[in-house]
Amino acid sequence: MSLRFKNAKRIEGLDSNIWIEFTKLAADPSVVNLGQGLPDISPPVYVKEELSKIAAIDNLNQYTRGFGHPSLVKALSCLYEKFYHNKINPNEEILVTVGAYGSLFNAIQGLIDEGDEVIVIVPFFDCYESMVRMAGATPVFVPLRCKPVDGKKCSSSDWTLDPQELASKFNSKTKAIILNTPHNPLGKVYTKEELQVIADLCIKYDTLCISDEVYEWLVYTGNKHFKIATFPGMWERTITIGSAGKTFSVTGWKLGWSIGPKHLIKHLQTVQQNTVYTCATPLQEALAQAFWIDIKRMDDPECYFNSLPKELEVKRDRMVHLLESVGLKSIVPDGGYFIIADVSMLDVDLLDMKDSNEPYDYKFVKWMIKNKKLSAIPVSAFCNAETKSQFEKFVRFCFIKKDSTLDAAEEIIKAWSRQNS
Amino acid sequence: MSLRFKNAKRIEGLDSNIWIEFTKLAADPSVVNLGQGLPDISPPVYVKEELSKIAAIDNLNQYTRGFGHPSLVKALSCLYEKFYHNKINPNEEILVTVGAYGSLFNAIQGLIDEGDEVIVIVPFFDCYESMVRMAGATPVFVPLRCKPVDGKKCSSSDWTLDPQELASKFNSKTKAIILNTPHNPLGKVYTKEELQVIADLCIKYDTLCISDEVYEWLVYTGNKHFKIATFPGMWERTITIGSAGKTFSVTGWKLGWSIGPKHLIKHLQTVQQNTVYTCATPLQEALAQAFWIDIKRMDDPECYFNSLPKELEVKRDRMVHLLESVGLKSIVPDGGYFIIADVSMLDVDLLDMKDSNEPYDYKFVKWMIKNKKLSAIPVSAFCNAETKSQFEKFVRFCFIKKDSTLDAAEEIIKAWSRQNS
Repeated sequence: MSLRFKNAKRIEGLDSNIWIEFTKLAADPSVVNLGQGLPDISPPVYVKEELSKIAAIDNLNQYTRGFGHPSLVKALSCLYEKFYHNKINPNEEILVTVGAYGSLFNAIQGLIDEGDEVIVIVPFFDCYESMVRMAGATPVFVPLRCKPVDGKKCSSSDWTLDPQELASKFNSKTKAIILNTPHNPLGKVYTKEELQVIADLCIKYDTLCISDEVYEWLVYTGNKHFKIATFPGMWERTITIGSAGKTFSVTGWKLGWSIGPKHLIKHLQTVQQNTVYTCATPLQEALAQAFWIDIKRMDDPECYFNSLPKELEVKRDRMVHLLESVGLKSIVPDGGYFIIADVSMLDVDLLDMKDSNEPYDYKFVKWMIKNKKLSAIPVSAFCNAETKSQFEKFVRFCFIKKDSTLDAAEEIIKAWSRQNS
Repeated sequence: MSLRFKNAKRIEGLDSNIWIEFTKLAADPSVVNLGQGLPDISPPVYVKEELSKIAAIDNLNQYTRGFGHPSLVKALSCLYEKFYHNKINPNEEILVTVGAYGSLFNAIQGLIDEGDEVIVIVPFFDCYESMVRMAGATPVFVPLRCKPVDGKKCSSSDWTLDPQELASKFNSKTKAIILNTPHNPLGKVYTKEELQVIADLCIKYDTLCISDEVYEWLVYTGNKHFKIATFPGMWERTITIGSAGKTFSVTGWKLGWSIGPKHLIKHLQTVQQNTVYTCATPLQEALAQAFWIDIKRMDDPECYFNSLPKELEVKRDRMVHLLESVGLKSIVPDGGYFIIADVSMLDVDLLDMKDSNEPYDYKFVKWMIKNKKLSAIPVSAFCNAETKSQFEKFVRFCFIKKDSTLDAAEEIIKAWSRQNS
């Protein structure tokens, strides 16, 4: 075949993708899908209603401002000023993007050069690595390590960075660190002290921080989400990323945002105007209207930012209990909507699975989808090649699911456990 | 300021953008906006109604397949098979993107390497140049040249490529040519013979063709749109790009698509999964439903693919007549929804305009927005630095506007003409 039909070098080796592979496997409607982070609960009624109304308005079906629909950036600045305790310029310090994914891409393409190093904390949302590689930069990995306390349930807070090990990854080539709190897939919510360690290193080495905070509202009792951008000396070097999909349980809207200082956001804007130019207008307007409804009642338990974590905490506890009841060790998440469990004690015979050079968890999940009609995501998908073996006993279940879906999962898991005993 | 806050090299010099600059200037509601290609006519009622209905359906607000929502790629394959006279695999030969803009970006990032040359025909939709530069490649420009026939109205078909000059731009470094038919801003609809010249060169030099056909339905009496991908030997080397915004007059939906052979589309898919991952689900489903309505009545004059060009042809003729009536020479477009006119005979005194090193048309349009409350787009924005001076007497007016908007423009232009005479 003609050489002209080959891919550009920048995407060499970046063609496999966990979501595409496992979404396809779980597409069978008879499979109970706790795989991809995809709510099957209803999004708030007012969110859907706003979109229905707006679809009828002619000019809201046409192009809007490329860097963010005016009413949406205004709502975002009003919302986040409450957390930053500072004015946020809606036009210069906010960029609306095609999902948080688009914000990650814009930040990395706009700020990271070939030859730069970017620190990535393992496990990590898989696109961090491929996006850094697509920019021609080198991801430098540092693991979260588990120090479980004997006799206590294992919690996501048992997973921590070793400060010395983290410091050893910084050098003069380090352009940025990618932070994710609350963390996917562990559900870890970084403490103020943990974030201060990272902030100190960023300042010491004059490094940028790309802070993926898409699960910012989804934090459970006893935990608090902190924004590293609000730490002294960090605003000027931090891009903070949020998501409409996670905020309002509408992942299909594909809207996200970056917040940061003008001197950084302007480079993300340049990427945007040369990649997609602008985001969908009707979705942006509907999102702005939804935000105004909840901005006006932020202290009210009915506010979705408060009610959704309450609703999810019950589901989390249910999943913890379910996994425990069948003897599976899980890591109790302090935030987010995933729970990971060690499946090695199930001792599933995977010998007849083809692709035998795949990590254990890939084979396990494929086996489970086929034989148990239950899907999950292998946790080694969130690891670089060298650390996959440390995580291949774990799979990730998503619990932002309606009760009937969790009932079906419970039935499968309990029947399986009875068979095994 | 810290060097770390500087942009990545790949976006160096790509921060200015004509649309952002002139959209801001035309935002004043007292300005009659014939600038950006933004319909102010109503999109079809069924298109808006489909979105209203779909917004209420829970699972259509969640993630869908990353390379295109299943019902949409099916509709697209069914539609385009009629034109390709060949089956089109909906999953492997179609990619749904964030607008046609997203398709251009994916094609260029997925297929063009640093050091490659890409042939760009002048004038050109401005992002072609910056996207090629962002990929580290070199745009090689070749102009459309005007051979007007004396005494005849100047038409977009008078603008042609010189086959020898075009051939001289191809060499072993040429990775691709970007084609745009119907053409923005000239409205030129390439003939079969003209496309054959390009196809022959693509085959001779083993070159890819990125064919931007977003105005494919908007072709006026006496002209016919041809798809270069259907020419012998071209399918295997062509990415054909279409747009929901142009097809259904909903530019704010930001949905487009690339069609081509699997061996090329797979590289665009790799870019997609590392940039935005997926497009908005409710918009994709609504678009699919809209397509099915019109696919079933393609021979019917009511089909939007037939009715919109009829509606626009009347508006085009009105604009031609209006410009002629005040003595402005225009280039009658055979397709698209723009008309360009030579404004030099208006002899506007622009001496007091600041930024005096800007091209004449930039200054003229800024003056016109300020003093006449009428906006347009300077045509030199569609040129590389070296050819700007050849086009700076022209401005582009958009005519996909309701009659009241065209009435207001007519009033302004006629009053201006009376003042001058």
